[in-house]
Amino acid sequence: MPATPLTDFSRLCLHTITTKPWSLDHACKEYARAGVKSISVWRDTLVGRDVAASGKQLRDAGLSIVSLVRGGFFPAADEIGRQKAIDENRRCIDEAAALGAPMIVLVCGAVAGQPLAESRRQIAAGLAAVLPHAKATGVKLAIEPLHPMYADTRSAINTLKQANDLAAQFDSSVGVAVDVYHLWWDDQLQAEIARCGKLGKLFAYHVCDWRSPTVDMLNDRGLMGEGVIPLREIRGWVEAAGFTGFIEVEIFSHRLWQTDQVEFLRQIQAAYLRHT
Amino acid sequence: MPATPLTDFSRLCLHTITTKPWSLDHACKEYARAGVKSISVWRDTLVGRDVAASGKQLRDAGLSIVSLVRGGFFPAADEIGRQKAIDENRRCIDEAAALGAPMIVLVCGAVAGQPLAESRRQIAAGLAAVLPHAKATGVKLAIEPLHPMYADTRSAINTLKQANDLAAQFDSSVGVAVDVYHLWWDDQLQAEIARCGKLGKLFAYHVCDWRSPTVDMLNDRGLMGEGVIPLREIRGWVEAAGFTGFIEVEIFSHRLWQTDQVEFLRQIQAAYLRHT
Repeated sequence: MPATPLTDFSRLCLHTITTKPWSLDHACKEYARAGVKSISVWRDTLVGRDVAASGKQLRDAGLSIVSLVRGGFFPAADEIGRQKAIDENRRCIDEAAALGAPMIVLVCGAVAGQPLAESRRQIAAGLAAVLPHAKATGVKLAIEPLHPMYADTRSAINTLKQANDLAAQFDSSVGVAVDVYHLWWDDQLQAEIARCGKLGKLFAYHVCDWRSPTVDMLNDRGLMGEGVIPLREIRGWVEAAGFTGFIEVEIFSHRLWQTDQVEFLRQIQAAYLRHT
Repeated sequence: MPATPLTDFSRLCLHTITTKPWSLDHACKEYARAGVKSISVWRDTLVGRDVAASGKQLRDAGLSIVSLVRGGFFPAADEIGRQKAIDENRRCIDEAAALGAPMIVLVCGAVAGQPLAESRRQIAAGLAAVLPHAKATGVKLAIEPLHPMYADTRSAINTLKQANDLAAQFDSSVGVAVDVYHLWWDDQLQAEIARCGKLGKLFAYHVCDWRSPTVDMLNDRGLMGEGVIPLREIRGWVEAAGFTGFIEVEIFSHRLWQTDQVEFLRQIQAAYLRHT
């Protein structure tokens, strides 16, 4: 059953990348002014800043921090590269802890030309290596399956079934981030969302839309309602699986980044109520 | 186990679209001169020609005709559109029969904004509607699952499992075309290729490569060896499933179409031996 329409912004979260032209200060001010209640912080916005102070600043502005984006990219062609990835993920966990973000979203990674099965083994090994540090700091890890068109270099985890299978190998610190952009086409999606909920692994829900045609494989995501994704139906599945968390708007779009971002934020809020 | 290297061109088939700048006459002459043994004909090359005479011309040049490309696109927003698609597929079947092509490759179709499940029902209904005509003319129908990035408008059939499930609903006139470009990322691929073989549905095998990065979602396919697809491993799976047919090179590439096509044909043959 499709979800009932959203009527307020109490569950609306924005990813800083969505309004990429804005600094963290700027995003903090504008999100709060617009009545947005939460934020997922991309690491690029924290470069050169006091991370703990940034977290306090966001909370003081009334913004809950949902996640730090992003860790992962565990596979590499050699042992040195894989160790570097593990070290970087530990730093990312420290950053999340300092920021006060309860969770890191993981884009798991892949290496062009390396068998996907080998990349998947390296992802599992990388997760196992960083998990003790995540648990020690109380930061959860959310595996985000990526669209199969990113299987060459971005993620060898390309379906929710794969993400669920992987998360199920770990304890309650490891779960899954469901992003409609990556998963909408999969005829197993409803079943795997239900399974993810039963496993207690449904950590995050990301929305945007799939434009038709899509003109850029990375940075042409649509605002909700601009594309073909059955957003309300999928939210119905997510909520039937027990998810009551924030609905995170994560849009990469050269087209939309070029527009006035205050007006874009207004459009996001309207689209959130009308289409999400 | 990876397949053993190919040592001659006895199983090499070219899709006319691969050398798009060439007319059918030109392709016929150059393929034959290069020692290519078979051809899959795209319908655009037949416009304005005597189809039966074209078939004879190709056979006289020593080229077996593997398939006519392409039928399908069954889903439509209304009944009139769906009937038009059925009529067009019947014409396509007539064309294949006149050409002497034993098989049509089906790109099944999808309608932006229509639920994928509904498009899949319309595809099954369209197949059922044209099947008697296909059987009467002896033309087989090969369902080609397309990459999930084409789920918006080109195909609601996006995995080999879906194609196998659909083909299994019909008799031996309906099978599957396995194209590595669309399916290489799927962790179920080996198992579904084996199942396809057991079902007696493995009608065709298409090769090219997935470039990293891919810069155009439609027309940036790579020559075999230019990308990340484990071609020899997948051919091993296909042959273990009992497939002994032609290996069809189907490349859409603005970049490669701009090169000298005689030289490109030489490169295809070298890549076929080295990488396929």
